[in-house]
Amino acid sequence: MGEHSETIQSGAALLRAVLAQDRRMLARGISLIENQARGYREILEGLPENTVTRVIGVTGPPGVGKSTLVDAMVSELTKTSKKTAILCVDPSSPFHQGALLGDRIRMNGWHDHPEVFIRSLATRGSTGGLSARIMEITDLVKAGGFDFIIIETVGVGQIEVEISGLADLTIVVLVPDSGDEIQAMKAGLMEISDIFVVNKADRPDSERFCQDLATMMRPEYSGLRPAAGIVKTIATKKQGLPELMELIENRLKAPDLELRRKSALAEKAYQLIVEKRMSDIDKKELARKIELSQLQGPFNLYHFVSAF
Amino acid sequence: MGEHSETIQSGAALLRAVLAQDRRMLARGISLIENQARGYREILEGLPENTVTRVIGVTGPPGVGKSTLVDAMVSELTKTSKKTAILCVDPSSPFHQGALLGDRIRMNGWHDHPEVFIRSLATRGSTGGLSARIMEITDLVKAGGFDFIIIETVGVGQIEVEISGLADLTIVVLVPDSGDEIQAMKAGLMEISDIFVVNKADRPDSERFCQDLATMMRPEYSGLRPAAGIVKTIATKKQGLPELMELIENRLKAPDLELRRKSALAEKAYQLIVEKRMSDIDKKELARKIELSQLQGPFNLYHFVSAF
Repeated sequence: MGEHSETIQSGAALLRAVLAQDRRMLARGISLIENQARGYREILEGLPENTVTRVIGVTGPPGVGKSTLVDAMVSELTKTSKKTAILCVDPSSPFHQGALLGDRIRMNGWHDHPEVFIRSLATRGSTGGLSARIMEITDLVKAGGFDFIIIETVGVGQIEVEISGLADLTIVVLVPDSGDEIQAMKAGLMEISDIFVVNKADRPDSERFCQDLATMMRPEYSGLRPAAGIVKTIATKKQGLPELMELIENRLKAPDLELRRKSALAEKAYQLIVEKRMSDIDKKELARKIELSQLQGPFNLYHFVSAF
Repeated sequence: MGEHSETIQSGAALLRAVLAQDRRMLARGISLIENQARGYREILEGLPENTVTRVIGVTGPPGVGKSTLVDAMVSELTKTSKKTAILCVDPSSPFHQGALLGDRIRMNGWHDHPEVFIRSLATRGSTGGLSARIMEITDLVKAGGFDFIIIETVGVGQIEVEISGLADLTIVVLVPDSGDEIQAMKAGLMEISDIFVVNKADRPDSERFCQDLATMMRPEYSGLRPAAGIVKTIATKKQGLPELMELIENRLKAPDLELRRKSALAEKAYQLIVEKRMSDIDKKELARKIELSQLQGPFNLYHFVSAF
């Protein structure tokens, strides 16, 4: 289908190619969205409704082995011929896309695999609009006929929490180290987690760590979601992977999933409208304008914002 | 100054009365903002710049004794003739303003005190716009010539985190009970806390609880803020209050405070602009419209939002 890439004329033609599972055109479509290039909205507005692709978020502090785990998950999925797309997001190193090179190399084994698509997403120094872009890209990728989309994020911050709203299921990866656990808790990752993976489970204290997590997830401490499941893995040896995949499958069958997708849809719509209406506002620019205004005389916040 | 209340003609006149420390007019101004009554923006746009009033957020799970603690804090502040305003927010019981009655009664002793102003804020069933309203009300109250504004919130949720952005200093109140601690952690309150108050410190396990908190607050786990301080209190007996007030004073002198106020100002401006531009959108209404649209045929999120 490579000829498409030379003759592409319009968003509609690109979308047809994406729907025909042309991966080069999918990659090009993602770039159009990343750059908010002319015509990208036309592509998005042409997307057919998709109710089959399942989106899995994978997050956790740096160094816990997320990429190795995702790699092992993809191995399991390809065993049963599941088509999988992986989107890697690293908002913590916004000025240097090369930061993702490590991940790319680690997952390089999949680059020629017909059922696997990998893409690192450029974040261009700003989290403003980032989750809207990831939302749009995820919806475009769905059109590529994947069974699963795995969105891997690298940090413990606001963007991880935002992305969890796009996922049908969120996996938080930790290692048996209370520092990581505390960071994850403080950032609110406990609230968004459906499954905890305790990776590097051959480390000492792994058993006690899992018990602590289980205590924390007891129903009396959790909100509306069912308590998160906990799986121990050693991703480098693919240990614990069948158990993880089984838990994922069960959770994706949970009766509350449709309800969550429904309320997630309204939330996504709201965020897209915010993003659209705020696209002319940059927070740093705003801070500069405020400083300038303060130099010129008494500052009144409400008078200041009345100009916007 | 009671005659003002009968003759008030305009927002400018009301603001003059507020600046002259007419508390009845301050209460009326707050109601105007709560109801987004005609002319309330005029009042806000007339506010003089204020750099002296310090805003303290007090939050924590229900039942930890926040109102009793705030009451004791006000006792300490009035000892040194500090003028204090208390704003009570309870977004967890949106349909029933009577929920705050208990707090009102508990703090009733202050209602005739010339240096203390107390107001419960109605939340009217929605957190959308709530933090913008609280921001506006806080700024109006500043004009009343207070040294301190204490914003007390009742739950562990998103609104608590949002309100921390309005405060110069945030106090999270807990009791020695790991259930509360876990709830607070999961909701992200650890991230916003400058001071932990461990109230009801005569309970067993109080010492161990404080040690656990201290571990969690070690510099390697905290972000840009200095690690939160921890104070043990028994608010009903006013024990620990002098220590708390001293810690508050020290924190309010911290060199990073001006920087935080500056970045908070840009964030506040951003939120006000979002709120202004999104005032026509209600999330529940949006969800209903999406359902309706789905009944009529294949649903495309981007086509749907293009109408807004």
